[in-house]
Order: sequence, then C-alpha cells, then structure tokens
Amino acid sequence: MFSFKLLKKDPNTRARLGLLKTFHNVVETPVFMPVGTLATVKTMSPEELKGIGAQIILSNTYHLYLRPGEELIAKAGGLHKFMNWDRAILTDSGGFQVFSLGPLRTISEEGVTFKSHIDGSTHFMSPEKAVKIQEALGSDIAMVFDECAPYPSEYSYAKEAMKRTYRWAKRCKEVHRREDQVLFGIVQGSIYPDLRVESAKYLTELDFPGYAVGGLSVGEPKPLMYEMLEVLEPHLPQDKPRYLMGVGSPDALIEGVIRGIDMFDCVLPTRIARNGTVFTRYGKLVVRNAAYKEDFRPIEEDCQCYTCRNYSRAYIRHLLHNDEVLGIRLTTIHNLHFLINLMKEIRKAIKEERLLVFAREFLQNYEQGKE
Amino acid sequence: MFSFKLLKKDPNTRARLGLLKTFHNVVETPVFMPVGTLATVKTMSPEELKGIGAQIILSNTYHLYLRPGEELIAKAGGLHKFMNWDRAILTDSGGFQVFSLGPLRTISEEGVTFKSHIDGSTHFMSPEKAVKIQEALGSDIAMVFDECAPYPSEYSYAKEAMKRTYRWAKRCKEVHRREDQVLFGIVQGSIYPDLRVESAKYLTELDFPGYAVGGLSVGEPKPLMYEMLEVLEPHLPQDKPRYLMGVGSPDALIEGVIRGIDMFDCVLPTRIARNGTVFTRYGKLVVRNAAYKEDFRPIEEDCQCYTCRNYSRAYIRHLLHNDEVLGIRLTTIHNLHFLINLMKEIRKAIKEERLLVFAREFLQNYEQGKE
Ligand SMILES: [Zn+2]
Ligand SMILES: [Zn+2]
Repeated sequence: MFSFKLLKKDPNTRARLGLLKTFHNVVETPVFMPVGTLATVKTMSPEELKGIGAQIILSNTYHLYLRPGEELIAKAGGLHKFMNWDRAILTDSGGFQVFSLGPLRTISEEGVTFKSHIDGSTHFMSPEKAVKIQEALGSDIAMVFDECAPYPSEYSYAKEAMKRTYRWAKRCKEVHRREDQVLFGIVQGSIYPDLRVESAKYLTELDFPGYAVGGLSVGEPKPLMYEMLEVLEPHLPQDKPRYLMGVGSPDALIEGVIRGIDMFDCVLPTRIARNGTVFTRYGKLVVRNAAYKEDFRPIEEDCQCYTCRNYSRAYIRHLLHNDEVLGIRLTTIHNLHFLINLMKEIRKAIKEERLLVFAREFLQNYEQGKE
Repeated sequence: MFSFKLLKKDPNTRARLGLLKTFHNVVETPVFMPVGTLATVKTMSPEELKGIGAQIILSNTYHLYLRPGEELIAKAGGLHKFMNWDRAILTDSGGFQVFSLGPLRTISEEGVTFKSHIDGSTHFMSPEKAVKIQEALGSDIAMVFDECAPYPSEYSYAKEAMKRTYRWAKRCKEVHRREDQVLFGIVQGSIYPDLRVESAKYLTELDFPGYAVGGLSVGEPKPLMYEMLEVLEPHLPQDKPRYLMGVGSPDALIEGVIRGIDMFDCVLPTRIARNGTVFTRYGKLVVRNAAYKEDFRPIEEDCQCYTCRNYSRAYIRHLLHNDEVLGIRLTTIHNLHFLINLMKEIRKAIKEERLLVFAREFLQNYEQGKE
C-alpha cells in the first residue's frame, strides 16, 4: 500500500522529514529523483543508481508514449521490468512536454492535439489517455494531465489554464483504476498568488494522495518561485507529500525544502554532466576546461562517489575531450551523487534541527564559487 | 618479474595452455585482450571489465601519444593509475597506426614522418621514440616499432619492410631500459612463407620475452592468415608467448589457438557493439533490427553476462534506437564477455584434450547462423 508518514516538522522552517511508502520501496523525504526520460537515466545502470543512493526515479510519459510506446512496455511486464529497476518510479503526465515541445498544438476542453517532436506525426492527448498510458507503464506514482502555462503568462490565461488543470485532474481521478499506482494532483497558477491558492483549494477537495507544484522553474526569477511556494504551503495538507516539478539546482533544492517541499526532479545534473560541468560545494566546475588538463586531484577531494574515489580531473577531461562514454558516465555519477548526498545531509540537518545553519553555510560556499 | 610458463601442449593441435606472469597479475593463456585505445575500453568501467574476466587490456601508443600525450600520463603516475586499471596492460608501438592512419608519411631508415589524423600536425616516430613513449606510459608489455606492410604487398616491398622491422626491433631492444616492462618482437613478412620464417629467425636471435605476429588480419583471406601461422609456428620458441595482433572474430580466435597462438587483441567486439551487433553461438545478431522490437528474450538465453541476466533484446533495441549510452554499454559487455568466455572454454578444452571437438562444434554452430 502507498502511504506518506510525516516524521518531523522543522521548528524553524517549513521543512519536513517524511517516509514515502511506495509499491516498491520506502523513500526517505525530502528526496531528489533522477530523471530517466526514455526508461534509462542517461549513461547510468540501475546498479550504479542504487550505488549512489537513488530511491526513486522519474520517467517521462510523453517520451515513452512516442518511443517505444506504452503498449510495448506493458507487454514487457511494465516499466520496472523493462528497464530493470525495482525501486519506485514516478511518471509525469506528458502535460509539460505537450505544451513545451509541440510547436503546433490545439487545446480544447477535451484535450490537446499536438505534433510529435520526432517525426511531426499528429497525436491527441487527453486526461483519460494520460492516465491510461501511465497505467500501462505501471509507475508507482502517476501524475494528472495538466496545462502548464509558460512564463510569462497573462493573468487571464493563467487562470483559465489553472481551472482547466483542475477539471482535467477531476477527469483523471475518475478514470484512474490501477490499485498498485497512485495519482498525484498538480497545482498550477503561474506566478499569481491568488491563482496558486485557488488551485490548491480546488485540488485538495479532490483529496489526492500527493500534490505536485507545476508551472514553476519555467523561466521565472527564483525569488518569484520561492514566493509562490511560501504562498502555497499553508494551503497544502500536511499529511501528503509535495513535489516541486523540474527543480534540481542545489540552491533551489535547499530553498524548496525550507518552504515545505518533499520531492524534486530535474534533468540538470545529468544534462550538465554530459556537457562536462560538475557540481562542487563551491559552485559548478567545468572539468572540460583547459585549466584541469594536468589537475590530478579528484573533482572534489572529500567526495565519496565512485568518480572521485578513482579518477582525476585530468583523466575525466581527457575522456570528455575525446567523446569517450566513460567521461560522461563519471561526471553523471558525481553530479547525481552530489544532489542525492545533499538531500541526505538536508534530512540529517532537519532531524538535528539545524537546517537553517546548514543551509546558510551551504549556500554561502556554493555561491562563493571558490574554485 | 615477468615470465611465461607453458602448462600444457595439446597433443592434437599446436594449441598451448600457459601462464603469463606480468608485473600486475598472472594471465591465463590463450587470452583475448580488450582494446582500450585512449586509456579506456570504450563505454566500460575497469570494474565491469574485471567483472567479465578481462585479465589484460591493450592500449594504443599512437593515440595516447597524440592525446593526451605520454608525458601527462607519466605525470599522472603512469597509464595504470591514470585509467584506474590494476591488471596488465600491453601497448602496441604505434607502428600499425602510423602506417595505416597517416596518409602522408615518409619512411626512412631513421623512422617515419607522419601527419596526425586529428589535426594534420607533423610528427616523427622512430624505434627509440616508440620505446621511450611506452616507457613513459608504463605498460607491462611494450612492442617494438615495426613496419606493417599492407595487403596486398609486392614481395620485394614486403621483404624490405620485414628486414627494416628487424633492424628497428634491434634498436628498440638496445634502448629499452624499464625493468618493470618487457618488450616483445614483431614478426612481419606479409603473406610470403619464406619471409615469415626469415623474420622469425632474425627476431628469435634477439631473444625477446615474447613474439607478436604482425601484418596479418589486414585484409587478406582468412585461409592465407592461417597458412602463415602454420608456417611460422615451428620457428617460434615454445617457451615464449605468441601474440596475434588485431584478431578477434570468434572463428579466428579458435583457428589461431589451434595454430599455437596465446594472445589476441581486436577492436571488433567493442566496435560492432556500438553499431548494435552482438555475438551469439549461432553467429552475429543485429539487435538493432526491427525483428527484435518486441523480443523480450535476452540476447542469449544461456549467457551469464550482466546484459543477458537483466535485459531483453527489445529494451536494448529501444536504447540503441534512441542513442542511449546504456544501449552500447550493454552490447559491449555482452560482446566482450562472449569472447573472454570463449577463451575460457578454449582453455578448458585444451586442458581436457578435447579442443578439436570443441572447435568443430563451435564453428559449426557459429557458421550456421541459426538466428
Ligand atoms: Zn564525486
Ligand atoms: Zn550476454
């Protein structure tokens, strides 16, 4: 059975410590979920993901629907078996991709007609279909089909999109059947506080087992995102997990936790890894740069990840410069380890009631960019 | 100390069972050596290589000399440390690449002037320099700098190249100093039996700790290659390892062992893996093909490799089609496991004096291509 247990609330912030029981494993929150768009977290094996402590991953309904198709995955025995991952999987609904990737789309109350970004073929996605696809995939946590308003959006459009997201959420809930899968609602409302609050009120009436915050981290300034989280927090039930979609920079993870968020996902760590950029306590480091050509230190001296225990910046730079796959494997491992370890440290700090001190110190170092 | 111990000679063929003691580990022969051109066996981690039983790998002097340069690797503490590999490494001399990759090269008795295949810059390689570079890399086994005649070559040119290879081998031996590295000689002579025999006689006078057979598997028909091995075998000392350069197809490995070869290397398994082709007992299988779209069986039902224990053809095909790195990781693991396991079975068959039966059965299945 699925459940969320709130273990502790930080007395100084809105941060929470929790246990998310899924159909595959128990996830400690706050948690960062690596993104496995096409049924693989790019460059990584499932064992490597477990090795760095990944508890739950995200996969993309839109992409899997187009390639290889949810029916093939269902025939394979579901997404877990297809990709050899026996821990929790959350699937998004495809809403974000339909609205951000499809240049030619028409929205009606029924759903969205869009063209594939791969071959231009025409497709139709509706709340019912998004649920059906996710049921075929067999993820632990499915998301309702939402309309994600871009940034910036006019108030009137943002309001309409938020209301439609609510009506679509209702329809998703009505057709969702799979008992070994739960369905989360998504709060929309762009950067308008009253719309965010209204969206939360509407959705919580439907009593979802978890709530995502969508439509943020889409180009707005970070302070605006944090403001929305602050406005929203009192209107989300305490006993349900909250998931901030598409956020994964170290600073935003900390700021999000402080504002009551339990779950995060983002392609950032894996994407920048493939461009030769790695996280460090002192900001990002472009290990691809000439400066590291003869630097035989690890990416981070005190990092316990496989990469830092065994390889030098010089070697990683050599691999990246020659398009050797091991190079992006090593940077990806370090970056995911960095964020997953950060969440672990955050959980420890909440437990020990020193989150604000931890946050201040971390952010100071990170923004300083000593290196 | 380096040594080669001949454990057993097959009574029915020229096959041999041996132990090659290197400065890092003891290698059971006959052995297949995966190729790590740029200080990485493409897509693989050292732990994965060990996991499939790789005992020794090959790395390319020509490529490492150009990128990242042998001096950087020496500063890193040598090739083993640079790439995190603590088993044996054999480096070739760069001879083959200088002659096959450099379109503009001038050969003199002193050495070869060639242009880099990367940026067109001009370089000079001599026997002395090839040894110096390999000493800087710190491989367990270094190779003499040889002139590899292309196929087909006129008798007169093949003879000249063979003789120069001998003179260069002598110069290599004279300057080689490193005590934790041995230097192998290379037999040349194209497809001319008398030149092969002459080359072997010349080289064995220099008393190398091991002998490579170069200039084969360069485009000549396989029967011709086998004939050269048969001609050559009686002229190579029994108590020294013999290494057939650039051979790695399953059938040629078996045929080579039968003709007295102890060591092989080839980019074939890793290269075809990246194109979506895998070895099976019943011939090659292009797992990229549409035929495997909904094939939920492993590449080989009875294969014990990580790939076959955990993934279906359908999943691997999906990954390959979407250029997901895990796809080429999985095919590479299977292909290297296939060859390394084949060598293990060959060693067992020699031990049990049933190599010819094993070979007949394997080759029948492999050439049948049931699938
Ligand atoms: Zn690290
Ligand atoms: Zn296999």
